[in-house]
Amino acid sequence: MLPTDAVLTGPDATAPYRQDRAFDPDAGLPLAVALPTTTADVQQIVRLAAAHGVPVVPRGAGTGLSGGASAVDGGIVLCTTRMRGLRIDPATRTVTAQPGVLNAELKAAVAAEGLWYPPDPASFEICSIGGNIATNAGGLCCVKYGVTTDYVLGAEVVLADGRVLRLGGPLIKDVAGLSLLKLFVGSEGTLGVITEVTLRLLPAPPPARIVAAWFRTIDDAAAAIAEISTSIRPSMLEYMDATCIRAVEAQLHPGLDTTAAALVLGGSDDLDPARRDVRFMMEAFTRHGAYAVTETDPETGAALAAARRAAIPAVEAEGRLLLSDVGVPLPRFGDLLDGVDAIARAHDVTIAMLAHAGDGNTHPLVLSSWDDDELAERAEAAYGEVMTLAVSLGGTITGEHGVGRMKRAWLRDQIGDDVLEVAQRIKDALDPSGILNPGTIFAPR
Amino acid sequence: MLPTDAVLTGPDATAPYRQDRAFDPDAGLPLAVALPTTTADVQQIVRLAAAHGVPVVPRGAGTGLSGGASAVDGGIVLCTTRMRGLRIDPATRTVTAQPGVLNAELKAAVAAEGLWYPPDPASFEICSIGGNIATNAGGLCCVKYGVTTDYVLGAEVVLADGRVLRLGGPLIKDVAGLSLLKLFVGSEGTLGVITEVTLRLLPAPPPARIVAAWFRTIDDAAAAIAEISTSIRPSMLEYMDATCIRAVEAQLHPGLDTTAAALVLGGSDDLDPARRDVRFMMEAFTRHGAYAVTETDPETGAALAAARRAAIPAVEAEGRLLLSDVGVPLPRFGDLLDGVDAIARAHDVTIAMLAHAGDGNTHPLVLSSWDDDELAERAEAAYGEVMTLAVSLGGTITGEHGVGRMKRAWLRDQIGDDVLEVAQRIKDALDPSGILNPGTIFAPR
Repeated sequence: MLPTDAVLTGPDATAPYRQDRAFDPDAGLPLAVALPTTTADVQQIVRLAAAHGVPVVPRGAGTGLSGGASAVDGGIVLCTTRMRGLRIDPATRTVTAQPGVLNAELKAAVAAEGLWYPPDPASFEICSIGGNIATNAGGLCCVKYGVTTDYVLGAEVVLADGRVLRLGGPLIKDVAGLSLLKLFVGSEGTLGVITEVTLRLLPAPPPARIVAAWFRTIDDAAAAIAEISTSIRPSMLEYMDATCIRAVEAQLHPGLDTTAAALVLGGSDDLDPARRDVRFMMEAFTRHGAYAVTETDPETGAALAAARRAAIPAVEAEGRLLLSDVGVPLPRFGDLLDGVDAIARAHDVTIAMLAHAGDGNTHPLVLSSWDDDELAERAEAAYGEVMTLAVSLGGTITGEHGVGRMKRAWLRDQIGDDVLEVAQRIKDALDPSGILNPGTIFAPR
Repeated sequence: MLPTDAVLTGPDATAPYRQDRAFDPDAGLPLAVALPTTTADVQQIVRLAAAHGVPVVPRGAGTGLSGGASAVDGGIVLCTTRMRGLRIDPATRTVTAQPGVLNAELKAAVAAEGLWYPPDPASFEICSIGGNIATNAGGLCCVKYGVTTDYVLGAEVVLADGRVLRLGGPLIKDVAGLSLLKLFVGSEGTLGVITEVTLRLLPAPPPARIVAAWFRTIDDAAAAIAEISTSIRPSMLEYMDATCIRAVEAQLHPGLDTTAAALVLGGSDDLDPARRDVRFMMEAFTRHGAYAVTETDPETGAALAAARRAAIPAVEAEGRLLLSDVGVPLPRFGDLLDGVDAIARAHDVTIAMLAHAGDGNTHPLVLSSWDDDELAERAEAAYGEVMTLAVSLGGTITGEHGVGRMKRAWLRDQIGDDVLEVAQRIKDALDPSGILNPGTIFAPR
């Protein structure tokens, strides 16, 4: 049985668990919040919920940005923050962790063994591994090192009927049966609750050299990014526009040039003594009109990367945000920047733009309001149009945050009726009563 | 309508399509072999089959090693050898190909644009991309560069009811909805027929330096492999035992030392001018008792890698093979070698051993016979026991070839009742009549 302090009830106690960082205004009022410690605890919660037809919303650290952990009325929020076990196996170069372990905790633990877990969402200090798996999270290094799913070798999952599945393990190659493991990655808690995960690690990477380039126009920045993306393999290629630069400077004073239209950070971590990729990036930035290009020293490079990671909270400090993560094929990156600009002007809203530019994945941050309903409405319209724009450019409504509840209305436009219908069949096959995270990805029953 | 020459009937015409390279003795007698050229052709075939409840066995180049393309009695073999379209998009660094394109053709086409498709099954010159996707094929470079699924960004699939699904596209990050794309990869034609695929490419890699190490005992070789695998990140780490060495020497005369118990090939393709990984491998090989260790020149390195790739056909030239691809967690690699040796002695059969040692994935080649039934029976028993051994060591019955029909009897022992039952639910949801590749992975109805 769960200990008494592992179940919270009543509006005050459950309030902090109603929303994730998408601040979904339609989040419901949960019956209870459960704080399991073990897989057996999770089984107990899910079985009880299944017996009574009560919805279960799995939640990690609550840093989701698409409303994938919005509470539903009368449901249970199953929060994994107490599931913090972790063991490293250097012999197989893997780490096995419970879902509540923070990404930064896991990175630090394996680094102490000389190992590296690459996926690095900008929120890595506050987001949990369980949430990373549930959304197939991305980050800055993914342009070279891939996304979360590329590192998931095994998982333990509690199904909607309370059974425990063990999938994969510390094996680099395993094709025995359907790839159920990869299906659970990115399923946002709609097919099962991940209670343990085995992740592949790499040796610590060489230090990255970071080049900073400052531009007067976003088109010049986009052109430089396109050339670099098709020519070399950077370990990072990040973009921040003027609004992001000014917000970060106002919050943290790292000394950014607030007159720039865009800052691009390119990283290279190979061992080439001739620094060919660094030189290529510097030349490409200059060729495309950057007014300042510098190969940074390690401290400055780290400070600029930290400034980039601080961009979302910095812009958020200015007010309510509708935060997106649309992506496009690389050659359409410039078109996306221009289109977002046009949408902002059409709706008279500010849309700050930052991007994992090297993989075409962007974060348009629409400034909304908590009290100005008319502005909030315009922001909402712009948020939707940005997704429609991305789809029209052959892109995606979500590159790394997930569909959650906030993006569901646009999912069909991207993937189409047939794909959605097949996905629904799989959902129904695994969760026939629809108790797992209803409303996320799939319409609630 | 399919042209007349695209449908073969009668036992003589269909005979070459009854078996893949697993030479499944229980392969059936097909009603017809269909040779589609377009997605519409595939739809037509599948719809016709669905309307009459006729099984459809998708087949690529027929190089499968687990009987995943064994014909079934009264069924249609849908062979993709005429689906050879290919287009490269350097701007998104992707290639979009029809399934019949050979891996080597695709590699050559993208290399002409300075690009690289990493997955490299030893059979890359004769196997097709469709089959690679269907089995989530591996290869030699996977220890550093990952397996097929890591490169699949998009696919077009014809479902059992004839509908066409379009999944993903030239996007590096896309988490919109369930990961159906990754579910189809490795599904061995049981969920749909892949008619087009979009693959991620990388810039051409730096040339690899290859170290060759010759051992007097397999235990020494295994110990060296374990140390290298936990310390650095080689671009290749391959193992061949004495039987393989002798067979390759007898066939191709590359000048291998046929007195060795094992040959290990380690590759390094980073840009480190100090050759730290090369030196580490050479020292580790020497420390663990290699009697000869050489850093090869490029021609010798390429010749040794080619000798490794030729091992399966070379051993096969000596008679019928039962070819496995079991894998274990890296620290159990030595235990697997020893256990396979014991199984060979117990059944008085020869089991040649080669391995993608760096990822714990091995190819025990059990020498069977086409005419000696008693030997064939002992070989069959050994083949099964090798899988049981791998599972007992925490490993897999198949690392990169797939379950097919030949390994189905051992699948439950590895993944368990619950995982198999959930997989069956997904199979039933997508192919309710069970017409797609019946008998592969799942028991036929």
